[in-house]
Amino acid sequence: MQQKKTKVLIIGGGFGGVYTAITLEKLLKNDPGVEVGLISKENYLVFQPMLPEVISGSIGILDTIAPIRRLCPRTNLYTREVESIDLKNKTVTTSAGFRPRPSQLEYDHLIIAVGNITSFAGQPGLGEHALPFKYLGDALVLRNHLIHALEEADMESDPELRRRLLTFVVAGGGFSGVEAVAEMNDFVREGARSFRRINPAEIHVILLHAGPLILPELQKSLAEFAQKLLERRGVEIRLNTRLAGATGESALLEGGARIPTKTLVSTVPSAPNPLVAKLPCKKECGRIVVNKHLEVIDYPGVWALGDCAWVVDHNTWQPCPPTAQHATRQAARVAKNLVASLRGEPKQPFAFEALGKLAALGRRSAVAEVFGFKLSGFIAWLLWRGIYLMKLPGFDRKLRVSTDWFLDLVLPPDIVQLKLEKGASLCREHFEPREIVFRQGDRGDRLYIVVDGEVEMVKEGPGQHVQLVGRVGPGECFGEMALVNDHPRMATARTVTKVNLLSVDQQTFHALFAYHPPLRRMFETLIEQRLTVASEGRQAQAGAAGADPGLTILQPDQTLDQNTWADRAARQGK
Amino acid sequence: MQQKKTKVLIIGGGFGGVYTAITLEKLLKNDPGVEVGLISKENYLVFQPMLPEVISGSIGILDTIAPIRRLCPRTNLYTREVESIDLKNKTVTTSAGFRPRPSQLEYDHLIIAVGNITSFAGQPGLGEHALPFKYLGDALVLRNHLIHALEEADMESDPELRRRLLTFVVAGGGFSGVEAVAEMNDFVREGARSFRRINPAEIHVILLHAGPLILPELQKSLAEFAQKLLERRGVEIRLNTRLAGATGESALLEGGARIPTKTLVSTVPSAPNPLVAKLPCKKECGRIVVNKHLEVIDYPGVWALGDCAWVVDHNTWQPCPPTAQHATRQAARVAKNLVASLRGEPKQPFAFEALGKLAALGRRSAVAEVFGFKLSGFIAWLLWRGIYLMKLPGFDRKLRVSTDWFLDLVLPPDIVQLKLEKGASLCREHFEPREIVFRQGDRGDRLYIVVDGEVEMVKEGPGQHVQLVGRVGPGECFGEMALVNDHPRMATARTVTKVNLLSVDQQTFHALFAYHPPLRRMFETLIEQRLTVASEGRQAQAGAAGADPGLTILQPDQTLDQNTWADRAARQGK
Repeated sequence: MQQKKTKVLIIGGGFGGVYTAITLEKLLKNDPGVEVGLISKENYLVFQPMLPEVISGSIGILDTIAPIRRLCPRTNLYTREVESIDLKNKTVTTSAGFRPRPSQLEYDHLIIAVGNITSFAGQPGLGEHALPFKYLGDALVLRNHLIHALEEADMESDPELRRRLLTFVVAGGGFSGVEAVAEMNDFVREGARSFRRINPAEIHVILLHAGPLILPELQKSLAEFAQKLLERRGVEIRLNTRLAGATGESALLEGGARIPTKTLVSTVPSAPNPLVAKLPCKKECGRIVVNKHLEVIDYPGVWALGDCAWVVDHNTWQPCPPTAQHATRQAARVAKNLVASLRGEPKQPFAFEALGKLAALGRRSAVAEVFGFKLSGFIAWLLWRGIYLMKLPGFDRKLRVSTDWFLDLVLPPDIVQLKLEKGASLCREHFEPREIVFRQGDRGDRLYIVVDGEVEMVKEGPGQHVQLVGRVGPGECFGEMALVNDHPRMATARTVTKVNLLSVDQQTFHALFAYHPPLRRMFETLIEQRLTVASEGRQAQAGAAGADPGLTILQPDQTLDQNTWADRAARQGK
Repeated sequence: MQQKKTKVLIIGGGFGGVYTAITLEKLLKNDPGVEVGLISKENYLVFQPMLPEVISGSIGILDTIAPIRRLCPRTNLYTREVESIDLKNKTVTTSAGFRPRPSQLEYDHLIIAVGNITSFAGQPGLGEHALPFKYLGDALVLRNHLIHALEEADMESDPELRRRLLTFVVAGGGFSGVEAVAEMNDFVREGARSFRRINPAEIHVILLHAGPLILPELQKSLAEFAQKLLERRGVEIRLNTRLAGATGESALLEGGARIPTKTLVSTVPSAPNPLVAKLPCKKECGRIVVNKHLEVIDYPGVWALGDCAWVVDHNTWQPCPPTAQHATRQAARVAKNLVASLRGEPKQPFAFEALGKLAALGRRSAVAEVFGFKLSGFIAWLLWRGIYLMKLPGFDRKLRVSTDWFLDLVLPPDIVQLKLEKGASLCREHFEPREIVFRQGDRGDRLYIVVDGEVEMVKEGPGQHVQLVGRVGPGECFGEMALVNDHPRMATARTVTKVNLLSVDQQTFHALFAYHPPLRRMFETLIEQRLTVASEGRQAQAGAAGADPGLTILQPDQTLDQNTWADRAARQGK
């Protein structure tokens, strides 16, 4: 009879998880008694160091990611999200796929390499309006956003809006912020040459950094080199400046200053993975504490590594930093120790000294600290490309990226804008006091629900005449009339306090309200009430002061019969 | 004083519009008195013939599209949608960008090259469940869908669902259907090798064609060659078979048969562009009638060409077919005639004889009719590549595509799945009678609103015991309880008639209903009514037959206070 296989399950498709699987495949080559599974949200591994180059398109979109199935062909890959880990019953529950039932996987050995997550929590408006930069999707969104801003600026005549569109702000002067701002700067400045109505002098690229010098991870002389180089290339560096929040129109700085911009990139603070937070095991700073063999304490057969684990180096007795260098070395150690424990051999403690640090600064320049040597400029850039090309997993990716780099030398940057996102049907927006949500005369394209704060509606008359027509607070909605009538906005909506809003687009609004009569009736009643209030206000005012009666009437010239709604939804829903 | 410039405005970013702009730039090189503007929805031109290769990834995503700004650098590009054309006042209104006000452009000469649109109208379920294949976005969606199906099949143990996932259906055996099915077939068969739990014999690729022989545009012997080649490569060709509709689970054939599949691609029937439909000028088959000089009749200064125009060839007296070959030649003719009319020179009539027809059949094979010669197989494939590489606009694209083709020779196909769409928060679904919308025990992830038709809710008890608990019709909603409670579905929803549904995802539901108290109250009332009905039903039934009381109670064990809703929305809305 066949012996029951030992089930090894790895959670996480980053460097930690994938390199564990790769090493296990090597070590277990001839062992049919062990089955290895890997759960990953995506079916590819992102090679993070090259992600900034995806912004500028100097590396093709798909070339900096490698298919996990090709990297570890003898591992069962589950492209799923993990919903929960049950250490007691030794099972992992994964999310549903085409069929809406979650599935459970059992394990004998579990390797947790889920990394950390990014979180904008606590900073008003960042979650809504800042662009994060961590995943492949972020790089693509950012790239398309930059091109979109250039496209809009090219057509825009209002100088204030042009300035907003052509100001690009990155918050955070660490490695990832610096690499991102360097690529963005190169890309918008070179790309803008193809836009005939954009003057290069109009472009502002700004890096915000909380400390007195960027790249605090590096030695001072290298950081200074990088800072000067970026400035020479047109990046405005604001030191000792902290980002405090954002609205759709500005970056808000600590101290109250604002930078008007439509593009704010924030290298996102990381937070513990909620999966890890729910585990009953011992933690330190939100990370799973492991022993020197990388085993989770009190749970034999469970291992943890990478950014989600609190690993103390066996030589230096310092906790390991959350870098890819460490994750890949820990992955190899976990795999070896796991196989050793299966075979009853002795396990080894984890120790590793980082080989160096490299930061790319855009076209043909970088800074590097390697084996104690300091390098900067072109030599460092060659080293950067050489080292990372070597480390890029998979021969096909190496070939593709080398080709990309070659083509990038001879061709101009790509400026095609892929509109893949259909535009959110539901989104959240943050406003500071006295900001405009929409203006009288604008096209009515969204319905707003107030989550918190207060919004006032004002009518602008001839001259400077402005009249308050109503206020709305938490739980109330506004902006529904322009959606119902297809008319321009009849009043301006302006925030009184800080305000968080939830907005629904026209298509969703019409589709929902056309086909669900109770919802429609609710909105019809609401609109009737608004009209009654407005017309009473008009009479009162007309009696009192004889003001222009045209100003206060919010009168729709259309009845809200079912056919109109359904027609409109049918037209739009196609 | 400076003379007023003559404004030439081109609408449409396809072959017709872009080649008109290119030719105008050449002809007007030294004329500062003419300003050319081009309105295009996208900032790139899609090179359609290479689109099928984007499916398999043998051409990089961005390499088959060329930035319009580089193709015609002296033309003002407006990346906007056109909302309306006013031929009387000589203005074009374009959609809003970052600021929600539409803008107007004036013209002295207008060139209409808006093409046609695709429409699934009148075929039940196709709009909801078939994948179209016309635009770049379609090719990307299709590519990711194919990889997703392979990923799911790799993990799936249910043989029926596996078959559905591994059956790929293309409807339409004309040029575009054949090229698409050939690339899909190559891609899924080669890609599947990296999926260790998929057996190649499980893969079914099916081409539906209404006539007795595919590729009716070509001579019989070439079409027969293509048909045999595809069959030899594993494509099942069903002749004299018409697609009648689709559900989320099947392709519906005329005559009532079904093919269970999760992947149905339909080469979409084209319909007149609604912009054209609204124009007051003379039309034929929905296309704008032009004279032999390509001028719109009765509207001097307005020209039309390409798929949206009814152009009669001056030599053959036949209407021109809607092909890229014709559009580019018409574009050159319009540009020359326009410049001639500006300079008071004589205009020329349009005449052009198509040079040939080419269809790619996947790896290293094609069929071609060129200058009267018939070619098939490898030679035709070389010709295909040579001709289209030559025609691909822009040196950078030529270099990129040649590189892609070289890499494709030496590397395996790419199988990374980019999940760029966030999943629709609102979508429409079509069901045939007696189909399951969701099953008791499934995870509750959507709320459904009935657009038309009837749905019944049944409880499945132990054994074969099934009990009807309710029916819902147009305007009513169902499935809200599982969303409110985070519980599995308490009943199965099954269609009685043909049904069209609108569904809202959990996140949208919670966000909307958490922050808008009137909506929340509406749903609370609805749920209370449902519970009352269910519990009355239970009492009545318990009295009558003593049935298992556990079966009919739909009891939530959670009160719906505001905090719960808001918490959940906050958790999910991050």
